[in-house]
Amino acid sequence: MPYVNIKITNEGVTPEKKAELIKGATQLLVDVLGKNPNTTVVVIDEVDTDNWGIAGETVTERRKNGQ
Amino acid sequence: MPYVNIKITNEGVTPEKKAELIKGATQLLVDVLGKNPNTTVVVIDEVDTDNWGIAGETVTERRKNGQ
Amino acid sequence: MPYVNIKITNEGVTPEKKAELIKGATQLLVDVLGKNPNTTVVVIDEVDTDNWGIAGETVTERRKNGQ
Amino acid sequence: MPYVNIKITNEGVTPEKKAELIKGATQLLVDVLGKNPNTTVVVIDEVDTDNWGIAGETVTERRKNGQ
Amino acid sequence: MPYVNIKITNEGVTPEKKAELIKGATQLLVDVLGKNPNTTVVVIDEVDTDNWGIAGETVTERRKNGQ
Amino acid sequence: MPYVNIKITNEGVTPEKKAELIKGATQLLVDVLGKNPNTTVVVIDEVDTDNWGIAGETVTERRKNGQ
Repeated sequence: MPYVNIKITNEGVTPEKKAELIKGATQLLVDVLGKNPNTTVVVIDEVDTDNWGIAGETVTERRKNGQ
Repeated sequence: MPYVNIKITNEGVTPEKKAELIKGATQLLVDVLGKNPNTTVVVIDEVDTDNWGIAGETVTERRKNGQ
Repeated sequence: MPYVNIKITNEGVTPEKKAELIKGATQLLVDVLGKNPNTTVVVIDEVDTDNWGIAGETVTERRKNGQ
Repeated sequence: MPYVNIKITNEGVTPEKKAELIKGATQLLVDVLGKNPNTTVVVIDEVDTDNWGIAGETVTERRKNGQ
Repeated sequence: MPYVNIKITNEGVTPEKKAELIKGATQLLVDVLGKNPNTTVVVIDEVDTDNWGIAGETVTERRKNGQ
Repeated sequence: MPYVNIKITNEGVTPEKKAELIKGATQLLVDVLGKNPNTTVVVIDEVDTDNWGIAGETVTERRKNGQ
C-alpha cells in the first residue's frame, strides 16, 4: 500500500527511464519492508528548471553557471 | 481550512468533471467534519500515464495490456 | 488508481469520522470519474494547530481569538 | 535541509518572480531557523485554474465572477 | 537534486529499515538518472492505519479482517 | 490562494519560530505575487531525523558525525 512520489527536474527523462524508476522504487518497498507490489503506487513529478530552487537559485540559473 | 489534493492520471478529464470533484470534496469536509467551505482548498494534479506506476509498471504499459 | 490526500488540523477527529472521509472520498472518485475503488488510496494528515497558518497566523492564535 | 513547496495558480508568473520566491523562501529558513541555504530546496507548482478550487468552486469560475 | 517522499503505514518500521529505504531510493536516482546523491533528499512519512484508506476502508479495518 | 508546505526536521522548533515562518511565507507571496494573505495557507511538517535522508544517509546518522 505504499505511495512513493519522486520529484525531478524536467530535463528529457525518457519513458524507459521513468519505467525503471517505477520498477525500482516498487521493488525497494518489497525488498526492505515486504510490501505488496500490487498496491504500491509511484508518481513521478517533472518540475521545470525555472520552478526548482536550491541554495536560493533556480536550477535554470545554476545550469547556466555550469552547475 | 482543510486542504485536499487529488491526483489522477491525465486522461481527458473535462473542466466540468473537475468542478464536480472540487464541489464534492469540499462538501465532504463540510458534511463529515463541519469545516468552513470558504477556506477549503482542493487541488487536482493530473499525472501523465508514463509518470504513474502501480504494481511496478507504468499506467501506459497497463493500458496497452488492457488494464 | 487515484490518490487523495486530505490535510486537516489535529483537533480530535475520531476514527469513525476518518473512516467516513475515506469512504466518501473514494466514492467521489467512483461517482465522478468511474475510478476503481480497489486501487483508490486516501491518506489523511492531521496537522498540529501550531503548524497550520492562514492569513499569516497560526490556527492556535486564531482559535484564541475565537476564529 | 528544508524542503519548501509553493503551489500557486498558473497565471503567467515570470521566471524572475519565481526566482524571487525561491530566494525569499530560502532566506526565510536561514533567518528564522538558521538553516543551511545550500541544502534548502524550493519547488514551485503552477496549477491550472480549472484544477484549483476554493469554497467549492474552481478558480476559473471565480475569475469569471470577478473574484 | 531529486526529492523522494515515501508514505507507508505506521507499523513498527525500525530506524535500520528506514536507513535502508533512504539509501536504496538515493541509489536508484543515481543508477537510473545519474543524479548527485549529495543533493538527493528522501523523506519518509509514517501514517497511522486509521488515516490510510484503500478500497474505501481504513487499513485498521482491513487488518482486523486479515487483509 | 497559495498553499505553502514547509518540511523541516523535528528538532525543537518553538511555536514562536513556527509563527514567524508562517508570517514570513505569507508575506513573501503578498510581496512577490500580490496574493491575498487571507486565503494563503502555510503548513509546516516536522519530520523525525530518522525519517529524513540526504546523501543516502539519515539525518540521525549525520548528526552523530557532526554534520
